[in-house]
Amino acid sequence: MKLKTLALATTLTALPIAAFANDAPANLEEVGYIFTTLLFLMAGFLVFFMAAGFAMLEAGLVRSKNVTMQLTKNMGLFGIACIAYYLIGFNLMYPGDGWLVTNVLGAISPTSLEPTGLAAADASLDYASVGSDFFFQLMFCAATASIVSGALAERIKLWPFLIFTLILTGLIYPITASWKWGGGFLDAAGFNDFAGSTVVHSVGGWAALAGALILGPRIGKYTKDGRTVPFLGSNMPLAALGTFILWLGWFGFNGGSQLAMGTVGDVTDVSRIFVNTNAAAASGSIAALILTQILYKKADLTMVLNGALAGLVSITAEPLTPGIGAASLIGAIGGVIVVFGVPFLDKLKIDDVVGAIPVHLFCGIWGTIAVVFTNSGATLGAQLYGIFAIGAATLITSGIVWMILKSTVGIRVSEEEEITGLDITELGMPAYDIAK
Amino acid sequence: MKLKTLALATTLTALPIAAFANDAPANLEEVGYIFTTLLFLMAGFLVFFMAAGFAMLEAGLVRSKNVTMQLTKNMGLFGIACIAYYLIGFNLMYPGDGWLVTNVLGAISPTSLEPTGLAAADASLDYASVGSDFFFQLMFCAATASIVSGALAERIKLWPFLIFTLILTGLIYPITASWKWGGGFLDAAGFNDFAGSTVVHSVGGWAALAGALILGPRIGKYTKDGRTVPFLGSNMPLAALGTFILWLGWFGFNGGSQLAMGTVGDVTDVSRIFVNTNAAAASGSIAALILTQILYKKADLTMVLNGALAGLVSITAEPLTPGIGAASLIGAIGGVIVVFGVPFLDKLKIDDVVGAIPVHLFCGIWGTIAVVFTNSGATLGAQLYGIFAIGAATLITSGIVWMILKSTVGIRVSEEEEITGLDITELGMPAYDIAK
Amino acid sequence: MKLKTLALATTLTALPIAAFANDAPANLEEVGYIFTTLLFLMAGFLVFFMAAGFAMLEAGLVRSKNVTMQLTKNMGLFGIACIAYYLIGFNLMYPGDGWLVTNVLGAISPTSLEPTGLAAADASLDYASVGSDFFFQLMFCAATASIVSGALAERIKLWPFLIFTLILTGLIYPITASWKWGGGFLDAAGFNDFAGSTVVHSVGGWAALAGALILGPRIGKYTKDGRTVPFLGSNMPLAALGTFILWLGWFGFNGGSQLAMGTVGDVTDVSRIFVNTNAAAASGSIAALILTQILYKKADLTMVLNGALAGLVSITAEPLTPGIGAASLIGAIGGVIVVFGVPFLDKLKIDDVVGAIPVHLFCGIWGTIAVVFTNSGATLGAQLYGIFAIGAATLITSGIVWMILKSTVGIRVSEEEEITGLDITELGMPAYDIAK
Repeated sequence: MKLKTLALATTLTALPIAAFANDAPANLEEVGYIFTTLLFLMAGFLVFFMAAGFAMLEAGLVRSKNVTMQLTKNMGLFGIACIAYYLIGFNLMYPGDGWLVTNVLGAISPTSLEPTGLAAADASLDYASVGSDFFFQLMFCAATASIVSGALAERIKLWPFLIFTLILTGLIYPITASWKWGGGFLDAAGFNDFAGSTVVHSVGGWAALAGALILGPRIGKYTKDGRTVPFLGSNMPLAALGTFILWLGWFGFNGGSQLAMGTVGDVTDVSRIFVNTNAAAASGSIAALILTQILYKKADLTMVLNGALAGLVSITAEPLTPGIGAASLIGAIGGVIVVFGVPFLDKLKIDDVVGAIPVHLFCGIWGTIAVVFTNSGATLGAQLYGIFAIGAATLITSGIVWMILKSTVGIRVSEEEEITGLDITELGMPAYDIAK
Repeated sequence: MKLKTLALATTLTALPIAAFANDAPANLEEVGYIFTTLLFLMAGFLVFFMAAGFAMLEAGLVRSKNVTMQLTKNMGLFGIACIAYYLIGFNLMYPGDGWLVTNVLGAISPTSLEPTGLAAADASLDYASVGSDFFFQLMFCAATASIVSGALAERIKLWPFLIFTLILTGLIYPITASWKWGGGFLDAAGFNDFAGSTVVHSVGGWAALAGALILGPRIGKYTKDGRTVPFLGSNMPLAALGTFILWLGWFGFNGGSQLAMGTVGDVTDVSRIFVNTNAAAASGSIAALILTQILYKKADLTMVLNGALAGLVSITAEPLTPGIGAASLIGAIGGVIVVFGVPFLDKLKIDDVVGAIPVHLFCGIWGTIAVVFTNSGATLGAQLYGIFAIGAATLITSGIVWMILKSTVGIRVSEEEEITGLDITELGMPAYDIAK
Repeated sequence: MKLKTLALATTLTALPIAAFANDAPANLEEVGYIFTTLLFLMAGFLVFFMAAGFAMLEAGLVRSKNVTMQLTKNMGLFGIACIAYYLIGFNLMYPGDGWLVTNVLGAISPTSLEPTGLAAADASLDYASVGSDFFFQLMFCAATASIVSGALAERIKLWPFLIFTLILTGLIYPITASWKWGGGFLDAAGFNDFAGSTVVHSVGGWAALAGALILGPRIGKYTKDGRTVPFLGSNMPLAALGTFILWLGWFGFNGGSQLAMGTVGDVTDVSRIFVNTNAAAASGSIAALILTQILYKKADLTMVLNGALAGLVSITAEPLTPGIGAASLIGAIGGVIVVFGVPFLDKLKIDDVVGAIPVHLFCGIWGTIAVVFTNSGATLGAQLYGIFAIGAATLITSGIVWMILKSTVGIRVSEEEEITGLDITELGMPAYDIAK
């Protein structure tokens, strides 16, 4: 119902009166509920936009013959994540009365929203709208899947990738995430992961690693005499744009994970988180900038971009407790990890097209460990326990799914298709038709 | 006046004291006003960004010889919409005491804002700032014009297009929109259109259809023996980026149309709207992905992108009352409509460069009808009445304007200019100068 | 700590109880604090995104051989601004008890945030979180540096540029900004600059002008017989995207500068600012569109884009007091200034690659003067005093820094590198590898 201000509208006869009821909260408890719900909505749309960030980053870093495919994968994975998380993921991730195998099975059900026009008496006034929480959490699930697509680009088939996405977003992520955020055994064990260095980023990274190992490297990436052939990305502005969009989205990713904005303490904490998130990204990018200049005598833009992302992943496990200096340091170390992590993977002949594994897995581990330096409630043991439990579970289950897909429908395009490029052979649509 | 925190600033001598007055609401009614105003501002900037989304989508889908022109049209139409809506549109759309011909004429006047530093006693405390409402509504008006530019791309002249935009945004849209949102006869008749499947999207679609019919198809698009020649878009990443931006903006488009955020019920409804909007977009994209795979044996990225937009348009008439499942279904049907709608238009030799008519008109109609499935207050009769009334009015008036423009200044570039491309011939500026 | 709603979570045993404490404000004063803090966070992330806007605008307007370098500079300058403003800039800019030379030296210290979980009793309840304020102010500092990079593109070396950025963001900007926003002598003198036409934009412009003069024009830009050779930008969609992003970010830039959102008057003022900011941008773009059509018989997209930015800069000194009509006029004059300003600079053989000096310096001055037309508290004398004082200080100090850099490490790439392009010679990474 869309009608303008009371002053203008009161003289109308056919107006729905309800639209002009006093639109004000009845008490401060309701104000708190509105603030926190608003936090989820705002943070949620920022994290949503990260889907565009991943798509642009990946479209920019793959070769131009595989760009349409990369975009199609990114659109497809996001849609599938939305459906899977709605149908089973969300309720699986938050099984209600503790994580138990029986509960997990019982928790397979679609998400329900509150009724329209919810009465305050029926709301969880000390939290937020379930709908807003679902919206926010859904975007985390989708982000996990986005991480995978970049690593496996340029040689994986579309549909097997999307089937994997369905399982990752409907089962693997919700279950491992529930161990911490659903109140499961890792939460009980004192494992700390504020916004998901491990729960989101390393899960995406482990799933990507399993895929990359089983899929094998792109043709020509590693020569027989052991050299790594650099494959240039097709469009650096897109890659930079994607990085900026991801950086922007991360304010929602980490800031929204405060899960509350109704008090002075909470909104001040969200402010701390914004500042620290930004500081870590900045330091990560500058660390990579300086380090590549020293190592290679040339600043390397793709490393600078990944350095920023590395800083962001590194601060994600604990963006609240550090001061700006500590956050900067944590981010900078992330940047260093990426600069060494990318050639390290190449040395192992693990072909990760966009550097997703160094950024999201290596720095996800680093960030999770770094929690112990600034959060006195965290222990190294509990952090390693969480890293190991979620890592092993994701690597193994992902590996099994990839193996099943490989031995049934197949996961890799033919050699000829790969050389020609997936845009033409699989989709029949080039990404660019730019006259000079 | 920009000065830092009280703690630091109180020792200064030359400070304007007013800046440090207690910056707190006096009562909960004021809190409600602030929340709803904030909703309009936040939703408004998200809908603003849709202008960039349309521009990128269209720039990506036209051929590279017409990209600078498409960008110029998108910048120009937005600016003109802002001016026209300010000068006459807003007051025309909300004529105050019911829609009457005499009032409409009397309502032609520029928009006034509240005075600076508005006292609470002078504010519409049960609504929101008029300025924020204007800001939000303006963006809807501009979006309507954006829809037209895509359909008519690659052969329409710049200035006649902008003159049409001036009339569309200053007169046609405000008047037809007032029939519903200004409290006019369609509102009185029980017509439901929450955020504008008909009021915004189909109006853009009808205006585009009228233009496409009168303008005719691009040279070479349809062969004499009845075949449709596919014209590849020039830049798929831009088209995908534009779609993501539009998707993002739609949270503001639909969420802001709740027009209230000051109560538990309202903010929870906004949350429902966010979730449903997202679900419809996701399902629309996946429906198009699967359907094009089945029909053509190849997933079609442009259809996937338009499928997401189709889902968004389809849910726009009623994003609140459906559950997530129903919203997903409504969106998916939108995706199907687009996959069949695009070749259907081609069969009629109506050349719509970006698929704007299937997306915004066909799905706008579908979404408006679909309201009756989830909103018990809606009737099929009233919905069809609204679709027909607004459709006929827009098609006829747009057609007349296009005909007048055609027979006076002309609306189509010369054959030679069209073949060479509008960027060079009309603007003298190629869109790309990219060395390989 | 991330756990779902109370309804689901209360049955868990291992829950941190604190997470479910009543998340509501205790009184309306706290509500005001939360609103204003939220304004800073929201405005801050919008202004952050302007970094992407500048990067895309500049990447689109430079030649394709220098795009990777331009992106690297933009990433690098943002990171450096973050570090410099944290380490010294913020505390330097807000020296506390008035601006004095001794205080400035004493104020060199890193920024500290409030402790986590800040108690309301320890907060500046009539303002906002220091963290949120820092976040917001930091983005202004970074924007200042972004302005410089565009003007000096295509011939300046990476590292000297970044060293200059360090000094600009750590010293020059904070000190000159403190004269007004830190409560310094310009503030005491009645100088008005609401959101920084002078304090931010002209400072960036003066620093760019000093650099452009000392660096000299690009090879081949000006012929010996006095002609200016047009160098086409490489990617118009990127330039348009950048402009739209900057426009979006400006709602945060100007709206956040209200520095308060906790009362009816404040949020209504923010609404006015959004409307006026948008109106000025729209009018600036349309003015440039019409004027280039008249002057050159062809609409010029780059002028339209710069016209929008010109409108934005022009309204930045006073986005609150004008009505929509006055704001539109102020913006339109900005658009006119840019259309004449760009060839004027060329006539002086000052080579500004993206038009940053006309946009940010010329229109920054215009906007600062225009304050007197709508703000009765402003005097022409005080405005000119501020323009002159900040302009002279920035031009002189920047000039000295550029001269020192020139005579030590050198600031300009070799002739051969410039002709070949900086992407290959300095960075070894082409921006595009797009197969036709």
